[in-house]
Amino acid sequence: MLIRYGMNARLPLYNSAKGCVFASSSVLRRQQFLIRTLGGCNSQSYQQRVGGIRSMAASGIEADADSILRAITPVLESTKHKGQAGKIAVVGGCREYTGAPYFAAISALKIGADLSHVFCTRDAAPVIKGYSPELIVHPILEESYNVRDEDKSNIKDRVLAEIDKWLERFDCLVVGPGLGRDPFLLDCVSDIIKHARQSNVPIVVDGDGLFLVTNHLDVVSGYPLAVLTPNVNEYKRLVSKVLNAEVIDPGAHQQVQLLAKRIGGVTILRKGKSDLMSDGDTVKSVSIYGSPRRCGGQGDILSGSVAVFLSWARQHGKAAETDPRISQMNPTLLGCIAASALLRKAAGIAFESKRRSTLTGDIIECLGRSLEEICPVYPSS
Amino acid sequence: MLIRYGMNARLPLYNSAKGCVFASSSVLRRQQFLIRTLGGCNSQSYQQRVGGIRSMAASGIEADADSILRAITPVLESTKHKGQAGKIAVVGGCREYTGAPYFAAISALKIGADLSHVFCTRDAAPVIKGYSPELIVHPILEESYNVRDEDKSNIKDRVLAEIDKWLERFDCLVVGPGLGRDPFLLDCVSDIIKHARQSNVPIVVDGDGLFLVTNHLDVVSGYPLAVLTPNVNEYKRLVSKVLNAEVIDPGAHQQVQLLAKRIGGVTILRKGKSDLMSDGDTVKSVSIYGSPRRCGGQGDILSGSVAVFLSWARQHGKAAETDPRISQMNPTLLGCIAASALLRKAAGIAFESKRRSTLTGDIIECLGRSLEEICPVYPSS
Repeated sequence: MLIRYGMNARLPLYNSAKGCVFASSSVLRRQQFLIRTLGGCNSQSYQQRVGGIRSMAASGIEADADSILRAITPVLESTKHKGQAGKIAVVGGCREYTGAPYFAAISALKIGADLSHVFCTRDAAPVIKGYSPELIVHPILEESYNVRDEDKSNIKDRVLAEIDKWLERFDCLVVGPGLGRDPFLLDCVSDIIKHARQSNVPIVVDGDGLFLVTNHLDVVSGYPLAVLTPNVNEYKRLVSKVLNAEVIDPGAHQQVQLLAKRIGGVTILRKGKSDLMSDGDTVKSVSIYGSPRRCGGQGDILSGSVAVFLSWARQHGKAAETDPRISQMNPTLLGCIAASALLRKAAGIAFESKRRSTLTGDIIECLGRSLEEICPVYPSS
Repeated sequence: MLIRYGMNARLPLYNSAKGCVFASSSVLRRQQFLIRTLGGCNSQSYQQRVGGIRSMAASGIEADADSILRAITPVLESTKHKGQAGKIAVVGGCREYTGAPYFAAISALKIGADLSHVFCTRDAAPVIKGYSPELIVHPILEESYNVRDEDKSNIKDRVLAEIDKWLERFDCLVVGPGLGRDPFLLDCVSDIIKHARQSNVPIVVDGDGLFLVTNHLDVVSGYPLAVLTPNVNEYKRLVSKVLNAEVIDPGAHQQVQLLAKRIGGVTILRKGKSDLMSDGDTVKSVSIYGSPRRCGGQGDILSGSVAVFLSWARQHGKAAETDPRISQMNPTLLGCIAASALLRKAAGIAFESKRRSTLTGDIIECLGRSLEEICPVYPSS
């Protein structure tokens, strides 16, 4: 896949005739950094690596998102029973933040998941429950202000025992929306992620979950079912921590690929003007125009959506089997592409009617129409 | 009724000419199991019993749900006063679950009941109250974590005294939506069911209420005003516990009938692709196409709806008197048929506009239109 999406085209900034680079350019310095650090390429020659870098910039990496959405979205059948279209759980929600986990969890339902749970702190639970009776909200987490030091070990055991009762029922966990940064809470969540790994449950990490894993990379490193969905700042921190470098723009595709590879083949969805996603092997982008509105909460829609599509891609990729370009792709990557495209289209629909007033809730209300327009329940053919 | 719906037709899988069966067929093995265990038929000969089994598969058991809905739905008259169209109470709602009791209680109102109460834990009450000011929510139940062992007896007495103040006013109790599985709570609810029996209040048991009665069958056994509404897994547990057998598909009608009979003539509504319902005597099915969406919470709509229609069938079956096929049927069964049909039609209407985004709340919003289409307030004729 590295070869397929990375090694075949040319990078015009390099003088390929001479095989040398204009070292004075800062862009080239960044690319030299990439050449030095391209993970997994140690056995390749310098020329091979340069050739790889050259190739990426010119290759078409824009995903065929509509085809992917149609391929992985399951056919609805009356013989199916509750749960078969997806059971998602969001770990997040504390005294300070309650909107984010709600947005992530309700988005999963609005796309078509059957059940959506939230695991949050005791204080956050009544508020999140109050947003919607459609969610199942478990008030099991605790923040330091509510816990005596001598009780921490017991409380952590209780939290993990409660999570373990549910964990294997879930098709995907979203960790981070509205989690906050309380050290004791993050310590518990770190163990929740470890338990999820042991049970092979896919994990989407966003928001404060990214704060946690950036500081403790071992928690997700080497887990191919982990998806990180950083925004500009979260991505900057990740790149600095993992690659000891700055974020680059020309070469962004290669950098996200390298980052994913360095974290042991997790999938990274870098949010931006174009969303870039890589599992360390394939790199794809989604550039569909959405909306210029940047109201808070859209990242939460995305993380909940990735969870659903990733689950569908793993379980219901029936149509995908007929298209080898899709069936050979990592389900985590398919989930990212589908979610990114759906959110952008929904944001566009919402913005058409609400303009500057568009809020995250308005976009969530357009998720269904957005999916139906791409992938109708009753195809006209 | 067993004869009417069970003994008159032929089961083609049996070789009736020879009066023997092809024992190699797994279907027949299941039917043999049924013949061996058919409750209450001990005085019948083997041939009579086989004849009964034969008859069921071929007899048309699909209910005429529209006629039943029209027959049992009361005429609205300005002379009536508050409460005459139904007073329903839901026992359910705990720290973990609040959506389920809300869905059941609000569905009862949306169909046309006048008053809908919820009896839940102290923690759940503010959240459920917050979902809607239309409900009357009593924060009287307690879970173990909130109760010291030495206080349990007093608290239980207090819970029962509170329930007793209300019990005889209700036309039907729904026990189970969002009840949770706390042992102390379930112990109290077990006694609430006993008190309801003493007062001859009909009881619809769903969700965690089914967990309770499956483990303590005596609580409902022999109570003809009890309706159990199990889903696939709950039904599996009931069949295993009561019949010491597995769920069968060919022969499903007979099995649900046998199960109802074995629990002393309670009514069972087995939810599935077709809903099957029996009071141990008559068996009926409702197979109207609804929606392929399986979002959580639809079972709660059903339990609240059964409560209303059951109450109406018992009290207002005026039109039913003109149709002996309906007037001779058990009101619990009429309630199940009407509720199943109404939910399916409402789910179909909601799905037409919301597609994959359809949530339980959307279906509830269609209950009124669904009933009005079948049974208009102002008939055109």
